[in-house]
Amino acid sequence: MDSLHAASPAAVTTAEAPAGRPSHAELANAVRMLAVDAVEAAKSGHPGMPMGMADAATVLFTRFLKFDAQAPDWPDRDRFVLSAGHGSMLLYALLHLTGVPGLDIDQLRRFRQLDSLTPGHPEHGHTPGVETTTGPLGQGLANAVGMALAERMMQARFGAELVDHRTWVIAGDGCLMEGLSQEAITLAGHLRLSKLALLWDDNAITIDGSTAVSTSDDQLRRFEAAGWAAMRVNGHDPQAVAAALAWARTNDRPTLIACRTIIGYGAPTKAGTEGVHGAPLGPEETAGARRALGWTAAPFEVPEPIRAAWRAAGSRGAAERGRWLDRLAAAEPARRADFERALSGDLPEGWREVVAAVKRRASAAGAAVATRKASQDALEALTAAIPELVGGSADLTHSNLTLTKALRPVTGADMSGRYIHYGVREFAMAAVMNGLALHGGLVPYGGTFLVFADYMRNGIRMAALMGLRVVYVLTHDSIGLGEDGPTHQPVEQVAGLRASPNLLVFRPADAVETAECWELALGNEGGPSALCLSRQALPTLRREHTEENRCAAGAYVLAEAEGGERRATLIATGSEVAIAMQARERLQADGVPTAVVSMPCWELFARQATEVRRAVLRPGTVRVAVEALGGFGWERWVGEEGAVVAMPGFGASAPAPDLYRRFGITAEAVVEAVRARL
Amino acid sequence: MDSLHAASPAAVTTAEAPAGRPSHAELANAVRMLAVDAVEAAKSGHPGMPMGMADAATVLFTRFLKFDAQAPDWPDRDRFVLSAGHGSMLLYALLHLTGVPGLDIDQLRRFRQLDSLTPGHPEHGHTPGVETTTGPLGQGLANAVGMALAERMMQARFGAELVDHRTWVIAGDGCLMEGLSQEAITLAGHLRLSKLALLWDDNAITIDGSTAVSTSDDQLRRFEAAGWAAMRVNGHDPQAVAAALAWARTNDRPTLIACRTIIGYGAPTKAGTEGVHGAPLGPEETAGARRALGWTAAPFEVPEPIRAAWRAAGSRGAAERGRWLDRLAAAEPARRADFERALSGDLPEGWREVVAAVKRRASAAGAAVATRKASQDALEALTAAIPELVGGSADLTHSNLTLTKALRPVTGADMSGRYIHYGVREFAMAAVMNGLALHGGLVPYGGTFLVFADYMRNGIRMAALMGLRVVYVLTHDSIGLGEDGPTHQPVEQVAGLRASPNLLVFRPADAVETAECWELALGNEGGPSALCLSRQALPTLRREHTEENRCAAGAYVLAEAEGGERRATLIATGSEVAIAMQARERLQADGVPTAVVSMPCWELFARQATEVRRAVLRPGTVRVAVEALGGFGWERWVGEEGAVVAMPGFGASAPAPDLYRRFGITAEAVVEAVRARL
Repeated sequence: MDSLHAASPAAVTTAEAPAGRPSHAELANAVRMLAVDAVEAAKSGHPGMPMGMADAATVLFTRFLKFDAQAPDWPDRDRFVLSAGHGSMLLYALLHLTGVPGLDIDQLRRFRQLDSLTPGHPEHGHTPGVETTTGPLGQGLANAVGMALAERMMQARFGAELVDHRTWVIAGDGCLMEGLSQEAITLAGHLRLSKLALLWDDNAITIDGSTAVSTSDDQLRRFEAAGWAAMRVNGHDPQAVAAALAWARTNDRPTLIACRTIIGYGAPTKAGTEGVHGAPLGPEETAGARRALGWTAAPFEVPEPIRAAWRAAGSRGAAERGRWLDRLAAAEPARRADFERALSGDLPEGWREVVAAVKRRASAAGAAVATRKASQDALEALTAAIPELVGGSADLTHSNLTLTKALRPVTGADMSGRYIHYGVREFAMAAVMNGLALHGGLVPYGGTFLVFADYMRNGIRMAALMGLRVVYVLTHDSIGLGEDGPTHQPVEQVAGLRASPNLLVFRPADAVETAECWELALGNEGGPSALCLSRQALPTLRREHTEENRCAAGAYVLAEAEGGERRATLIATGSEVAIAMQARERLQADGVPTAVVSMPCWELFARQATEVRRAVLRPGTVRVAVEALGGFGWERWVGEEGAVVAMPGFGASAPAPDLYRRFGITAEAVVEAVRARL
Repeated sequence: MDSLHAASPAAVTTAEAPAGRPSHAELANAVRMLAVDAVEAAKSGHPGMPMGMADAATVLFTRFLKFDAQAPDWPDRDRFVLSAGHGSMLLYALLHLTGVPGLDIDQLRRFRQLDSLTPGHPEHGHTPGVETTTGPLGQGLANAVGMALAERMMQARFGAELVDHRTWVIAGDGCLMEGLSQEAITLAGHLRLSKLALLWDDNAITIDGSTAVSTSDDQLRRFEAAGWAAMRVNGHDPQAVAAALAWARTNDRPTLIACRTIIGYGAPTKAGTEGVHGAPLGPEETAGARRALGWTAAPFEVPEPIRAAWRAAGSRGAAERGRWLDRLAAAEPARRADFERALSGDLPEGWREVVAAVKRRASAAGAAVATRKASQDALEALTAAIPELVGGSADLTHSNLTLTKALRPVTGADMSGRYIHYGVREFAMAAVMNGLALHGGLVPYGGTFLVFADYMRNGIRMAALMGLRVVYVLTHDSIGLGEDGPTHQPVEQVAGLRASPNLLVFRPADAVETAECWELALGNEGGPSALCLSRQALPTLRREHTEENRCAAGAYVLAEAEGGERRATLIATGSEVAIAMQARERLQADGVPTAVVSMPCWELFARQATEVRRAVLRPGTVRVAVEALGGFGWERWVGEEGAVVAMPGFGASAPAPDLYRRFGITAEAVVEAVRARL
């Protein structure tokens, strides 16, 4: 490896192709100039990274990536993740040149314009061939760890003839500076994800200038400390890059390839500076780049021989795909059916009956049980019934109660398990779960304390943005956790989650609602769900079994007013529904007909028709909400004249009953709030 | 170092003290047994870590830490941070034994009880001697990096005779698994914070069991790759620990000391297992620990010779403090006054006049200017006037516009600058800013994109919980950022921040409001502030200079209804105030007397008296809010009958004007919403 290590970034690309076939440089320059032209046309964007990484990406796409442009989503393709998502034109140029349907040249001309297939950062589900949405740094890399892990787990289940592919990532200095990258690479190293390779765009430039203004890391050593194989190459030397990629395929560990590159390679005056990172080159510099690269074609034009060579590269995987389809067709029918069902995202038949049985048992038992424990009870049944359901926790297994008898740990040596010990890596857990879901075939859930949803906030956001079915098991969901105190007591997290588009936030009141919310979360195929669960035991309020999933409406009347027209409506979630029920009892005893509304999911309730919502909430009655959280946003449901019995600020360290008293989250306070408004 | 590296965790503590003086083991066992007894009494808590780290902490506190228990907050003390905050009883035992006033034995008996000085996790500002609130893993370490950096910066300004101290941290496996730790250690290594030493409680146990279930890192190598000196010792061998701490003082880099320890050291059957991490030992195991450690005193009792030795250790720093006071008294008066003022937190006289001048210029210029640019204009004046104001950005300096002419970069070689290139490390930036503020003498601000406030969410939370004056400069605050698309367009972040207790969230509408919000943020001594600023240019709406800071009320009538009784009230923040003004113009032209309320800060407005709020919002008029964000929580201000013109979901990639049209954030939409309700 010495000669590779010694490779200088100043070395010029000199690879010559056989006569008549375009050279590597010509192929790479097509990528470069499409990126330059698109950014010029958009008058905004990031040309520097595509110009710098065009050589390495060309080697990957023309010689290594298992990819069929005509079927960019076939299950056994290699995954390619552009973690440095701002370099989106690199990816769009590659997808266009290889011939992915839909990505015609007009889409590149409309880079960053409304409704184009070429948004500023790559968006999964929007553009064919884009494996994950990237831009928030570090997450693409962590998604890729999830994809590589999914491949190993799916192979363990279905065999190498159906699942056998690699995951390749391009990441920049920014990705590697994010702490998330450490979480992701240490997990990948620990799990020995040998089919994962990371090409680091080692250009020594970030937005603030030279990386030397903010970092002095020895990255190779860092990756090696995390159990990776690592080497450095001249990222503009295709032979060196090819040798490194070939080496990556032989490693028994994940591989880092530091590609020494020049950002904006080819730009005559701006190359190697931060000036080329995030702004168009401008007409003069663009013309200079054309001259420097020997590129004579007009903007957005690619000479036919080069285009043809790229098309050929794009169909390199067609034969492999054909063989895979043959193997799939020849597979044992039950295994094939299982495989296809898992990939389709349809859960096994009968899974809803499993939930119904859990509900029936819970309402019959009528026990006081923490909803985290009720969640584990539901998971015992669900993990047994749904083989693609994959659990885990960020080192809080015994607290989140996420482990069940059906699940064995996933380890580097044995990928047939279904429980991932994520370690104290909340953000990576969220991003890896996104990768598992993106890969297909798996439905991941993962646990941490609700307050530490903060640590993975943007990972949750990306799941919502991409519409991925992942489930967060967020236990210890209020001051009810007691003595661990305010650092561990969520006050504002639920409001923050409720504010997110396309995220279902559940806070079930008892064991029955917990089972119902699990059913809704697993049935929520188009986005993530968060289950906010209590540490402390809660009485079972739903003592009569119903076939209907009452939580599906988001909110429902748990106890209607009696003895006359309803005058007060108490609205609560989770552990405070029992408090509302106590308050109702007192108000009823005082002759105030009072209803209790359990509202486990605001988002589902907001989807109900206005008249349905009015029938439940009854504007005109005195409305009082009670939630042992910060109360933010409750005016939506109680109106301006209503009251919210909630936490006045952060919590404190003490036994839970002392805290409920201290902060006034009590039936008395609810009763008083109603009386003051009658 | 070889003999130290070879030290086995099984080695027994054998250090013998001179006749008559308690041995190291006796001193350490006092810490151990107080922790055990307190957890037993509380029936909850974490005994394992205090038992494991008692030896190393005893060496630190009795021989190295510059500490005077009678004045636990004197400015030139060494800082000690317990990053593994769940081991709080280790810290409480040390503070109690050294004689910190207030921490009597009764407080230890009341561990984790309401209103005790001994909450479940250490809380700064609540318990004397607690330098920072810890529990959320990794953050104490990052706070310590901030403290160590503050020491270097303060020394550069005031000289070594006034500022010359060290920062010591204890962190566990959990802290080091968090990605945040990587951000913090790479920044510390880059800045060569040689007076920072980290004692890693290397016990190979996390909550899920052996660390081997989730990590395979070579930590020493990792730290070395980040520019640290690193070594491993037997954490139960006081000589070895002392040698390592002495070595740390000689290094020109930050130092990692991996202390191989046995979690729950002394517990006869549970030591070395996760069972001793987070639960009381129980009576039998406690009795066994007493026997194993040779500890015969009753619970919460400490034999007098041991107590006396600890008291002596606690006053080790008294003489040093005396000499420091002498040097301070002898210091040149102007420097001394500057130093004392900086530490007091009072900003220099005249700083508010500086803001007034900025406002005057802005209203006179009347230009269309992005509020991020207006922020930079304000900062130009403020950084020139306030020497303790310290800026920075998470690698978005040119986008956040956080750098001013008065600020030079802080580098490892020259700490006299006041601008910190945090690199792409948002979470560390927040936690390091907390450390800078906790240290005293500095007022930090730092920038990133608003959407990436997600990455540092819990660091913001900790600032709010501790009541630290730090300012977040969060630019690109809506779809107004345009082409970078939904990954970069904040929709839910502002609601999440508004939901936080003790955090002021500002979204100024123009250059004048931006200056006013900066004044409010810097004047907000008891907590953090977030400034949400536009990328795009906004017209100056406040064209007449007012001495009064109108934003101080949180919301105010920017334009009152004309031509009759007010019928409509348009409420907006930031970039949408101009849209509300356009809508008002049309409604007024149609004969609908309409007022516009600018509401730059919900939290300040919520503090106003009810009648003030009603006078501004006028319930009974048609109220419509407009904000190019998710709209969550606005029912509070517009009522149930009002409307919110807001984003229906995530954004998209396109030029900003296209996006405002696409998502209907327009004057037309506001007018329509009013008309539908008239």
